[in-house]
Amino acid sequence: MRLIICVVYLAVFGPAQCGNILVWPTRGSHWINLKIILETVIDKGHNVTVLVPNPSPFMDTKESDRFSYQYFSVSMTTQDMQDFLNELVHFSVYETDQLNLLQIQIKFYELASKHQDMALSYCDGILQSPELMDKLRDGKYDVVLSDPHFPCSDIVAEELSVPLVYMFQFSIAHVLERMCGQIPSPPSFVPAGMIKLTDKMRRHTSYCEMMGKADIWLIRNYWDFEFPRPFLSNFKYVGGLHCTPAKPLPKDMEEFVQSSGDDGIVVFTLGSMIDKMPKETSNMIASALAQIPQKVLWRYGGEKPDTLGENTKTYKWIPQNDLLGHPKTRAFVTHGGINGIHEAIYHGVPMVGIPLFGDQTDNLAHMKAKGAAVVMDNIKTTQPQDLVDGLNAVINNPSYKENAMRLSRIHHDRPVKPLDEAVFWIEFVMRNKGAKHLRVEAHNLTWYQYHCLDVFAFLITILTVVLYVFFKMCKFFIIRCCFRSKRKSKKE
Amino acid sequence: MRLIICVVYLAVFGPAQCGNILVWPTRGSHWINLKIILETVIDKGHNVTVLVPNPSPFMDTKESDRFSYQYFSVSMTTQDMQDFLNELVHFSVYETDQLNLLQIQIKFYELASKHQDMALSYCDGILQSPELMDKLRDGKYDVVLSDPHFPCSDIVAEELSVPLVYMFQFSIAHVLERMCGQIPSPPSFVPAGMIKLTDKMRRHTSYCEMMGKADIWLIRNYWDFEFPRPFLSNFKYVGGLHCTPAKPLPKDMEEFVQSSGDDGIVVFTLGSMIDKMPKETSNMIASALAQIPQKVLWRYGGEKPDTLGENTKTYKWIPQNDLLGHPKTRAFVTHGGINGIHEAIYHGVPMVGIPLFGDQTDNLAHMKAKGAAVVMDNIKTTQPQDLVDGLNAVINNPSYKENAMRLSRIHHDRPVKPLDEAVFWIEFVMRNKGAKHLRVEAHNLTWYQYHCLDVFAFLITILTVVLYVFFKMCKFFIIRCCFRSKRKSKKE
Repeated sequence: MRLIICVVYLAVFGPAQCGNILVWPTRGSHWINLKIILETVIDKGHNVTVLVPNPSPFMDTKESDRFSYQYFSVSMTTQDMQDFLNELVHFSVYETDQLNLLQIQIKFYELASKHQDMALSYCDGILQSPELMDKLRDGKYDVVLSDPHFPCSDIVAEELSVPLVYMFQFSIAHVLERMCGQIPSPPSFVPAGMIKLTDKMRRHTSYCEMMGKADIWLIRNYWDFEFPRPFLSNFKYVGGLHCTPAKPLPKDMEEFVQSSGDDGIVVFTLGSMIDKMPKETSNMIASALAQIPQKVLWRYGGEKPDTLGENTKTYKWIPQNDLLGHPKTRAFVTHGGINGIHEAIYHGVPMVGIPLFGDQTDNLAHMKAKGAAVVMDNIKTTQPQDLVDGLNAVINNPSYKENAMRLSRIHHDRPVKPLDEAVFWIEFVMRNKGAKHLRVEAHNLTWYQYHCLDVFAFLITILTVVLYVFFKMCKFFIIRCCFRSKRKSKKE
Repeated sequence: MRLIICVVYLAVFGPAQCGNILVWPTRGSHWINLKIILETVIDKGHNVTVLVPNPSPFMDTKESDRFSYQYFSVSMTTQDMQDFLNELVHFSVYETDQLNLLQIQIKFYELASKHQDMALSYCDGILQSPELMDKLRDGKYDVVLSDPHFPCSDIVAEELSVPLVYMFQFSIAHVLERMCGQIPSPPSFVPAGMIKLTDKMRRHTSYCEMMGKADIWLIRNYWDFEFPRPFLSNFKYVGGLHCTPAKPLPKDMEEFVQSSGDDGIVVFTLGSMIDKMPKETSNMIASALAQIPQKVLWRYGGEKPDTLGENTKTYKWIPQNDLLGHPKTRAFVTHGGINGIHEAIYHGVPMVGIPLFGDQTDNLAHMKAKGAAVVMDNIKTTQPQDLVDGLNAVINNPSYKENAMRLSRIHHDRPVKPLDEAVFWIEFVMRNKGAKHLRVEAHNLTWYQYHCLDVFAFLITILTVVLYVFFKMCKFFIIRCCFRSKRKSKKE
């Protein structure tokens, strides 16, 4: 069947070749974007094989029979991995201000070590299995697609001699892009995200050298969200590629939405990772939401809060993109996950942000700076009145809606749709066996060569020698003059 | 009629608005690219008004009745301008190695002053005419299109409060892009063109501030020609937008080309500015061309050389793009003008370069580095055998053809065609009244802020104070200790 698609595609669209794509394991919001690209390349006749760790708590291999799956064994158990993730979320959201700086560092180091163990167990599961590596070699892959938050794809791609395409939003303090991708980041106007966490990555220079071999870096960002900055010819900004026009809502949900009248609705979600929030938090949120005239659709899987108002309905899951694209939607309350923000930008919906952890603080800071969001400090210190004030501001002060619509226009008004651009560059790498013509020479320079310090050192040495010789000669002539005049005066 | 096109366009393609475009005067190869964009935007229903200096030796206002022309008076005569250009070419091609360094500097300063006078006469001709400025204001322009080699468009755009789009290849030593456009150019791997000429521009910081207001910089380059480098979100690489598939040749030319048999043809041109070369030069070229088995089509308007071979025909004008796209074409001998190089890349033709002046040396250095050209030092020192060897190399050593074809693939294999991309961004600026969301914050920083020197200075000050206090305290305690022990020892 796939062969037929491929042949038909070739006949219709000409010399685009149908190839084999190997996908590095990923999960959660990272997977959402990748999956949309994969669906598209399959539509174009390519074969997609997804690497899946076994055991795997995060990847549901039943979700699409269009992908092939290649399992590999990892030494960690499902419980280990789930525990790690829960620990990370709990630490980031609830523990950081109960601990002192030293305790935070120790805990962070612990978590970082666990993350590294997990990464290494993936790495070993693939590289230490000769049968699997042979099978992958036989797969004759044209490209490896990977999110660098889940490391080791670079080494496997190198082992298989296959070009590598990265796709991600941004790394901690832009370290990966800057040091491995050689993207220039003048700190004077390119804000560094999550500075606290910088140290860990910097020790791994060989890691960086491996990463630097990626042919294309697909960045899940665009200038609707990101501040303008320098970038390189092999960095492609494809943020928001998962956004689509809204589809109709389920019938009962549509009825609830329509019941809101002119006041409209508020869409509320803090993401999938924080379903079990403390009771006082859910009560705080519920009591705030009860005070606004809008109807609220709250994605919340926990126990029903006592203070839940009549205008608020909780759902275990909501069709977020379809709700954000609904004409009745007035505001979006979000934890600041990048996918949700892109959807809000796509549909031009102003936001109220409650950042939980990770990149979310940064993401919301961007939206605040662009005038499309009011942002709370964090979920623990937020009072009901803060949330009510924030919602009233973004709903009733027209500047927030105007700014959200401006970002939406920027998002839509580009020469190529982000999904098409992402697919184009993946196929480009497959067609051309890489994209070396986009690779800056900076990869082959040391840091002192990059900054021309070797040239400066050489010039300063020359200058020093010249000055030294000049002064020596001056001294020599002055002394000779003095001696002469002394002699003269003696003779006289 | 244009209104009808506009209405039809609106009906078919939706909300693209039809607007008014003001074009700054330009000439020669700069005009070729701009004209193609203008033709395309007129096809889409926009109105184009070209500013034309009166007198004008360079712009033929009869060449298209699709543009409106707006004349303005300049104080220089046609002869002044033509003389200046002849003087510039003669100085660059023939005089530079007969003069010593001081003479070159003086001559260069003279020429630069004349160029500045010419630019100022354009500036005055528009800005000092209240009637013309009123007329331009009444024109309700949506965008000014300009090549920054012909200055003053930034001031006029500012006066009219109209967004500005620049289009050019690159400036002397990248000074304009770097200092006015804030594009990062680490000198360690971004080669600076024509370094000799740097000083002049650097004095004009207010000039730079004005230029920095341009919304989009359309760069007549792409990664088939340019080395990969950092750039900014408002720099769009649209090089080669003027290239098209080859059209059939005139009948007699096609017959001559076909008579070449399997050996094929060589296309030879040194551009439009050097028709009157010294007799020994034209004889050198002709005698070299007589030695190769290919047929040669030589664009040359001068007297027939004595040594012209039977295989060579001279033409006052040749359809260069159509010849380069002809299947019989084996090589292109070029002075290295950027338009010709883009055409050779487009059609995958290897080159022999004879640089004359300006950016041509740099352009050819790029082609040599990418393995698609053999390059002579300059036209005066080239011997017939050098030219024959160069031609034999690029025709018979397959690596040159392979590299030219690789560049051609890179040129064609991009998500949007360069002409479409250029038009897209011009229309974007018209639709959105500018493109401020692509403007880096670096424009608002001083040089020491850009490099974070203010932050370093602050940190070093703090460190110095802390160290100073620390040493003072140490000294104090040591002295006290010493005194005590002295007293003790006295008491004892």
